[in-house]
Amino acid sequence: MTNTTPSLFDRLKAAVADDWTAYTGHAFVRQLGLGTLPEAAFRHYLGQDYLFLIHFARAYALAAYKTTDLAEMQRAVASVDGILNTEIALHIDYCQGWGLDEAALAALPEAEATMAYTRFVLECGLAGDSLDLYVALSPCVVGYGEIGAALAAEPAAVSATVGKGNPYASWIEMYAGPDYQQVAQAAVAQLDHLAALRLTPARFDALCQTFRRATQLEADFWHMGLTLAP
Amino acid sequence: MTNTTPSLFDRLKAAVADDWTAYTGHAFVRQLGLGTLPEAAFRHYLGQDYLFLIHFARAYALAAYKTTDLAEMQRAVASVDGILNTEIALHIDYCQGWGLDEAALAALPEAEATMAYTRFVLECGLAGDSLDLYVALSPCVVGYGEIGAALAAEPAAVSATVGKGNPYASWIEMYAGPDYQQVAQAAVAQLDHLAALRLTPARFDALCQTFRRATQLEADFWHMGLTLAP
Amino acid sequence: MTNTTPSLFDRLKAAVADDWTAYTGHAFVRQLGLGTLPEAAFRHYLGQDYLFLIHFARAYALAAYKTTDLAEMQRAVASVDGILNTEIALHIDYCQGWGLDEAALAALPEAEATMAYTRFVLECGLAGDSLDLYVALSPCVVGYGEIGAALAAEPAAVSATVGKGNPYASWIEMYAGPDYQQVAQAAVAQLDHLAALRLTPARFDALCQTFRRATQLEADFWHMGLTLAP
Amino acid sequence: MTNTTPSLFDRLKAAVADDWTAYTGHAFVRQLGLGTLPEAAFRHYLGQDYLFLIHFARAYALAAYKTTDLAEMQRAVASVDGILNTEIALHIDYCQGWGLDEAALAALPEAEATMAYTRFVLECGLAGDSLDLYVALSPCVVGYGEIGAALAAEPAAVSATVGKGNPYASWIEMYAGPDYQQVAQAAVAQLDHLAALRLTPARFDALCQTFRRATQLEADFWHMGLTLAP
Repeated sequence: MTNTTPSLFDRLKAAVADDWTAYTGHAFVRQLGLGTLPEAAFRHYLGQDYLFLIHFARAYALAAYKTTDLAEMQRAVASVDGILNTEIALHIDYCQGWGLDEAALAALPEAEATMAYTRFVLECGLAGDSLDLYVALSPCVVGYGEIGAALAAEPAAVSATVGKGNPYASWIEMYAGPDYQQVAQAAVAQLDHLAALRLTPARFDALCQTFRRATQLEADFWHMGLTLAP
Repeated sequence: MTNTTPSLFDRLKAAVADDWTAYTGHAFVRQLGLGTLPEAAFRHYLGQDYLFLIHFARAYALAAYKTTDLAEMQRAVASVDGILNTEIALHIDYCQGWGLDEAALAALPEAEATMAYTRFVLECGLAGDSLDLYVALSPCVVGYGEIGAALAAEPAAVSATVGKGNPYASWIEMYAGPDYQQVAQAAVAQLDHLAALRLTPARFDALCQTFRRATQLEADFWHMGLTLAP
Repeated sequence: MTNTTPSLFDRLKAAVADDWTAYTGHAFVRQLGLGTLPEAAFRHYLGQDYLFLIHFARAYALAAYKTTDLAEMQRAVASVDGILNTEIALHIDYCQGWGLDEAALAALPEAEATMAYTRFVLECGLAGDSLDLYVALSPCVVGYGEIGAALAAEPAAVSATVGKGNPYASWIEMYAGPDYQQVAQAAVAQLDHLAALRLTPARFDALCQTFRRATQLEADFWHMGLTLAP
Repeated sequence: MTNTTPSLFDRLKAAVADDWTAYTGHAFVRQLGLGTLPEAAFRHYLGQDYLFLIHFARAYALAAYKTTDLAEMQRAVASVDGILNTEIALHIDYCQGWGLDEAALAALPEAEATMAYTRFVLECGLAGDSLDLYVALSPCVVGYGEIGAALAAEPAAVSATVGKGNPYASWIEMYAGPDYQQVAQAAVAQLDHLAALRLTPARFDALCQTFRRATQLEADFWHMGLTLAP
C-alpha cells in the first residue's frame, strides 16, 4: 500500500460528513437516479444551472487573475473556456431537448439559491486567497463527479430505470463519464497543489467552514430544483 | 415649488414598489410595532443582525478602498467606525438585555439569510463600482429609517403598546430617532452624489435589479427572524 | 460622410496628445523603424514584454470576472486565451530567435517599469468598474496597432531598412498586419460599447487621467528597453 | 532570556539586507539626519507623502474588508482612521510650515514613484491574502520607525545639527518618538499574528519578493524626493 496521505478534499469531506451526505444523497439526486424526479423540477434545476455556470466561469476568471503562475493561470483559463465555450453550449443544446431555448435561459430570473451560492464563492475568492476560492468551488466540481459515479453504479436504480428509459440517463452518464471524472480528479489535485503552498494547520477550521457552507448551498440548490423555488 | 427631481433612492424604491412594501411591511415589522413579536424571533434576529453588522462594516471598508476622494473616504470610514465601535457595542449592550452576551453572539452560526444578503452586497461592490455598492447597501440603511419612522407614527400600534410596555419600543425609538434619521438621509445624499458622477440611463435597470435583490434579501432576513430559520 | 461622433478612444487620445506623441514617437520606436535600435535594447524589451503579457492576461481575466454579460465575458476570455495560449507561445518562439529561451524568460527579474505599469492597470480595474479597466488597457492594445501601422507606412524608414534587412521587420509586420489591426479596432469598439453603458460627462476627466497615466507608463516601458533599466 | 524566534519581519529584512540598507541608509535619509537636505527635496517628498498616505489608508481599508475577525478589523480600521483623521491632519499642519497649504497638496500631480509604490501594495492585497498585504505594507510602517530611531541616536549628526537647528528635527522626533515606535511594533506583531495563521515554508520566497519590491519602492520614493522627480 502506498500514498496514505488523504487529499485535502478528502479531509474536508470527512470533516463535514453529515452535510456531504445531505448534499450527495439529496432527494433530488435519488429521484434523478430512479428516474422519478418530476420533469418540472429538472427543468427548473437546468435553467438555474445555466445561470450558475456563468458565475462559476467568473469564479475561475477570478482564480486566473489571482495567480502569476503561468501553468496555474492556464488551468484556470481552461476551466473558464470550458464552461463558456463548451459546457454552456452543451447545456443550451441539452436544455432545448427539455423545451428551454437560449432566449428563455437568458431571460430566467435568478433564483435565490443560485444567487446565494455563487456570490458566496466569489466573495470567498476576493476576501481570501486562491486556496479559499478553490475550496469553495470544490463541492460542486468534485461532488458532481461523485454523484454521477454513484448513480451510474446503482444497478437497482439506474440500469433498471434506464431499461425503462430513465429520462435523466444522459445527465448521469455525462457526470459518470471519463471526461468529467478527469475534471473532478484534476480539481482534487489542484487543491492539493495549493495546499502544499498555502495550507497551515491554523487555516483548516476556516477552510472547513467554507467547504461546509458551499456543501450546504449545493443541497439548497437541489432543494430549489425540487420545490421549484424562485 | 421646489426640488422636484426625485432622489435616485426614490426612483429605485418606486421601481420595485411591491418588493419594498413586502420588506417594510413584513409581518416581523408589524408584529414588532404591535409588540406581539415572539421574543424568540426577536432574539434570533438580534443575533444574526450582529453578524450582519460585521459584514456591513466590511462593505463600507470596501467602499473606502474603492475611492481616492478624501471626503468620500472619510464618510465611508466614519460608517465603518460607527458600526464597529459604536453600533456593535450598543448592539452587544442591547443583546445582553435580551440574554445574549458577547461570547454567545460571537459563537452564533451564521444563518443562510445573513450569509446570502451580505455576500451579495460585497460582491456587487467588487464586480462593479461604488455606485453599485452603495445601491446594494441602501435598502438596509434607508429602509430601517423608514420602518422606524413609520412604526413610531402609528398611534394605534406603538403608542398603545408602549403604554402597555411594547418590549421593542427602544428598538423603534432608535431607528425613528433623529440620529438614525440623519444617517438615513446622508445615505440618500451619498447615492445622489455618486449618481451625479456615474449614473447613466443605461445603468438604471441593472441598478434596479441590484436594489430589488437587496430589498428581497431584507425581507428574507425578517422571515429568517420570524421562522427562527438557521 | 457619416459617423462624425469620435470614439471614446479618439477623445482620450486627443485629450492627452502630448503624452500620446511621446509614447508613439518614442526614440525606441523610431530606432526600431529605422532598424538602428541596439539589439540589447530590443532583447531587454522582449523579455519584459513577456512578463508584461502575463499581467495583461490577468487584467483580461479580471475583466471577465467583472461582468455577467455572457458576450462580454466571452470576448474578455478570448483575450486571456489569446495572450496565454497564442501570444505568449509566439513570444517564446520569437524570443528564441533572439537568444532568449523559455527558462531564461521565466527567470527574468521584473523591471520596475513592467511592475509599475501592470499593477496600475490591475488596481484601476479593482477600484473602479470595467470602463476604468478597459481605458487603462487601451493605450497598449490600440497604441501598438497605431505604431505598427505608422512604421509600416514610412518608406524612408522601414522599406529601405527592410531592404537592408531591418532586424525588427517581423515585429513591425505583426502589429501592422490585419490580424492585429482587427484586435486594435475591437478594443476601440469595446470601449465605445462600455461608454454607451457607463460614461457620464462627470467621469471623463478621471478617465483621461487614467489614460494619460497608462500612456506615460507605455513611454516608460520604451525608456526601460532603451536604457536597459532594471 | 529566551524568545529566540525571530519575527517574520526580521526574517524578511535579513533576506533582503542589501535592499534594506539601500532604503534605510539612502542619501535622502542621511542628509535629513545631518540637516543638509535641500528644502526643495524635503518639500517635494512631503507633498508626495500626502498623496501616498491617502493610498495607504485605502490599503488598510482593504485589509479591514479582507477579514471577518472583529479584532483584526478594528485594528485595520484604527489604522485607516489614524491616517485619515490624525496623520493627514498633522501632515497638512506640518506642510503649512513648509509653505504647502491643503489646496496645494490636493492639486499636486502624483509622482511616478508614488503611483508605482501604492498600486503595487494594493494589488498585492487584492491578488493575495491579508498576509501578502501586510508584508507589502511593512517596509514603510516599520522602516520609518527604524529610520527615526537611528537618526535620533546619532549624536554626531542629529544632536549637533539640532543644536544648530536641524530643520528636520521635528520629523525625526516624530518617528523616533514613543507613539510611532509603538505603531511600528504593533505592525511587527500583526505580521507575526498573520504568520501564525497563514505562513508556510513554501510561501516564504514569494513573501520575500513582495518585501524586497516594497523596500526598493521605498528607496525609489527617497530618490524621487532627492531628485525632485515628477
